[in-house]
Amino acid sequence: MQTIHPAAPAAIAALAPLLGDRLTTARAPREQHGANEAHHPAAPPDAVAFPETTQEVAAILRAAHDHGCPVTAIGAASSLEGHHLAVRGGIGLSLARMNRILAVHAEDMDAVVQPGVTRTRLNEELRATGLMFPVDPGADASLGGMAATRASGTTAVRYGTMRDNVLALEVVLADGRIIRTGSRARKSSAGLDLTRLMIGSEGTLGIITEMTLKLHGQPEAVSAATCRFGTVADAVDCVIATIQSGLAVARIELLDEMMLRGFNAYQNSDLPEAPHLFVEFHGSPADVGEQAQAFGDLAGEFGAMGLRWTDRAEECRELWHMRHQAHYATGALDPGKRTLATDVCVPISRLAEAVTHAQALARELALTSTIVGHVGDGNFHCGLRVDPDDAEEMARLHRFTDALAENALRLGGTVTGEHGVGLGKIAYMAAEHGEAVTVMRALKSALDPEGILNPGKMLPPDDEG
Amino acid sequence: MQTIHPAAPAAIAALAPLLGDRLTTARAPREQHGANEAHHPAAPPDAVAFPETTQEVAAILRAAHDHGCPVTAIGAASSLEGHHLAVRGGIGLSLARMNRILAVHAEDMDAVVQPGVTRTRLNEELRATGLMFPVDPGADASLGGMAATRASGTTAVRYGTMRDNVLALEVVLADGRIIRTGSRARKSSAGLDLTRLMIGSEGTLGIITEMTLKLHGQPEAVSAATCRFGTVADAVDCVIATIQSGLAVARIELLDEMMLRGFNAYQNSDLPEAPHLFVEFHGSPADVGEQAQAFGDLAGEFGAMGLRWTDRAEECRELWHMRHQAHYATGALDPGKRTLATDVCVPISRLAEAVTHAQALARELALTSTIVGHVGDGNFHCGLRVDPDDAEEMARLHRFTDALAENALRLGGTVTGEHGVGLGKIAYMAAEHGEAVTVMRALKSALDPEGILNPGKMLPPDDEG
Repeated sequence: MQTIHPAAPAAIAALAPLLGDRLTTARAPREQHGANEAHHPAAPPDAVAFPETTQEVAAILRAAHDHGCPVTAIGAASSLEGHHLAVRGGIGLSLARMNRILAVHAEDMDAVVQPGVTRTRLNEELRATGLMFPVDPGADASLGGMAATRASGTTAVRYGTMRDNVLALEVVLADGRIIRTGSRARKSSAGLDLTRLMIGSEGTLGIITEMTLKLHGQPEAVSAATCRFGTVADAVDCVIATIQSGLAVARIELLDEMMLRGFNAYQNSDLPEAPHLFVEFHGSPADVGEQAQAFGDLAGEFGAMGLRWTDRAEECRELWHMRHQAHYATGALDPGKRTLATDVCVPISRLAEAVTHAQALARELALTSTIVGHVGDGNFHCGLRVDPDDAEEMARLHRFTDALAENALRLGGTVTGEHGVGLGKIAYMAAEHGEAVTVMRALKSALDPEGILNPGKMLPPDDEG
Repeated sequence: MQTIHPAAPAAIAALAPLLGDRLTTARAPREQHGANEAHHPAAPPDAVAFPETTQEVAAILRAAHDHGCPVTAIGAASSLEGHHLAVRGGIGLSLARMNRILAVHAEDMDAVVQPGVTRTRLNEELRATGLMFPVDPGADASLGGMAATRASGTTAVRYGTMRDNVLALEVVLADGRIIRTGSRARKSSAGLDLTRLMIGSEGTLGIITEMTLKLHGQPEAVSAATCRFGTVADAVDCVIATIQSGLAVARIELLDEMMLRGFNAYQNSDLPEAPHLFVEFHGSPADVGEQAQAFGDLAGEFGAMGLRWTDRAEECRELWHMRHQAHYATGALDPGKRTLATDVCVPISRLAEAVTHAQALARELALTSTIVGHVGDGNFHCGLRVDPDDAEEMARLHRFTDALAENALRLGGTVTGEHGVGLGKIAYMAAEHGEAVTVMRALKSALDPEGILNPGKMLPPDDEG
């Protein structure tokens, strides 16, 4: 394992006195921080730094900036697009030790946290307050990573994405300067929206060192249900009708027949291998009852079978725990391969068309693919099982992902609803954004002229448009 | 009336063949477009252009860019911070003729509009669809201007601000290039959030030429009420309790005793001159009834008097029409002066403190001031009557606005919740944002290196920090 970036040794030497054993070039931590859950090749940094304060992050960036050394932030490393992989080497900046909850302002329904806090940890701490942080990407991601990738997940249809649930940030810029964006006020029109500029910037514009999050009241009552349909089109048409009717679903998830087959293989169960919807309502007991009734009536019109409600917390938790295992359950199909997850999002009226197109395409290309989706937003994932060493299969995979992306754009959508660009979607940025890519590049150059922040991610190189 | 900017004649000459009589240097239209509703001195542009297409806007910007001529966009000119005033001369770019509703996608609950469409026009067109665009700043502002200033208003507590209700934009950049930001997908994590960067950029980064807006279902039932309180502190404490209880108010507005006095003077009425709340609930008839009941119970705990509900559409409309006349009703106090509206926004738990501080300060400085507020967001406005020619009164006014801003920042808030920075809040940008102002300036330089877009607005000059 060799040093990859020529500037790394000098930057590492400069930081050693400050960080002591919280800066390591040992093989194991480098390999650990250079691995990923998805299909991307491993890419270890030259060193891993574990700062504990904003000032330490600033010192790391100053040193890296002085020496021209890349810095790649690492949260919980649950990214599916390789955001945290040090593809150009340099320093891997782990936020794992910046994991304190600094304040919970229950009276204002906000919390101030460090970026290494995970979403489940925050919700455990909040339990007694009656409040919650709803954004739920499935993985127990770090909140900093969720902000950096504009994450969302099962509850976005009701509570919004990270874009909507971050009030303010503290950010260390490429040259080590520290800025604050936003305030604890619920809204502001005081100048450029730097908070939203940083959210989704994937560590390419700055490192988030503190975040003020919007909290929500825990729902008084929760009611969840599963049901199955004759075809995926029926299930999706039921979703479209549900959203268009104005029913305030808290979650509405599609799982196709292959996904159910994956669950049966993964957890040794005997669920019907048919397209399913998993739904949940939050509100007062009266609300939730009324909405469940209305959903049941609607679902019936689309031929829903086996509709089963529960309002027991333990059963709801089990249901969503199962849903969150989709990535691993996909892995139970075609064992020995890796999973590539796609992430298109389209206007809701085009969702049935997009999902059936994806299914047909996978069949045509003889690829094993599950489909799960946060379909209330028009967002769905294909989980494709592939062998990165099988060139012929990889060629079929790329035909699939290219056609899927092209179709999403044709339908007025986006190539990535919530996973971010990272390494895997760079190829589609020009097609999605056109000339706007040059604007993104100009903003990147303005804030990181040396290009040290997470190089090789998000934006295609200049000569590719 | 003289030409103010030296580059204007050449840019105007270059554009005359393209725009014909839609480019004018006549005195009357220049004066009309250089006037404002607030206290700012008039500042007419050297010419007013009335483009009808995105290509024409692009041509105007190319010519202006080539000649170094300022361009200031003008929507409905309802800004309270002089955003549209051509303080450096140059071209005033009126979006008034770009006022077409290009598409309503009822099935996706979105609409595509040109920037000159006003919010009431859009809602009239939407009436039959069962959908609405809820953002309500009071004035019949243009939607482009609302996006450019990140406007909100009475309904933001329920439906969010322009930040939350714009899906995508078409923008012409300073050099005439045309970009599209976002898509019709409900969410995306595909790169930098240029949509949010443009929203609130006050015409300093680009000119919005098309917008895709998120629509909402018209509420099945609406119920509105007014009630009065013994003190402003009681009224605000009732608001805080309402928000903290999780009641889904659609509107909750504070009007202080001076504001009621203004209404009585303006509309020759006999309303009790006491602090009032105006509230509204949207939902199913059952919801709305339940919420009205809960609010009534809460309000009673804070000594509310004269609580009166209506669910008749005409009465609700009249109520909000009256509320929207606050700017003019303030004008009925101390006639012959002008109105300066402040716009601080603080965390809800500090709202009572902020409002009572503002009242005491106005009394102490012997200034006539009304208070109205979108208090569910922690946002309130003081309407101060001043004579711009009275230096001593203006000195007291500036002591007031400085102390108000300082107090809002001390309480964790912002100096402008929804009116934007324009001319009037530039002085507070450094105090609110600190080092982040340099980041805003770097972004501005990256996208408008010649500084032709709305110069003199939003950002303090470089030498002021």
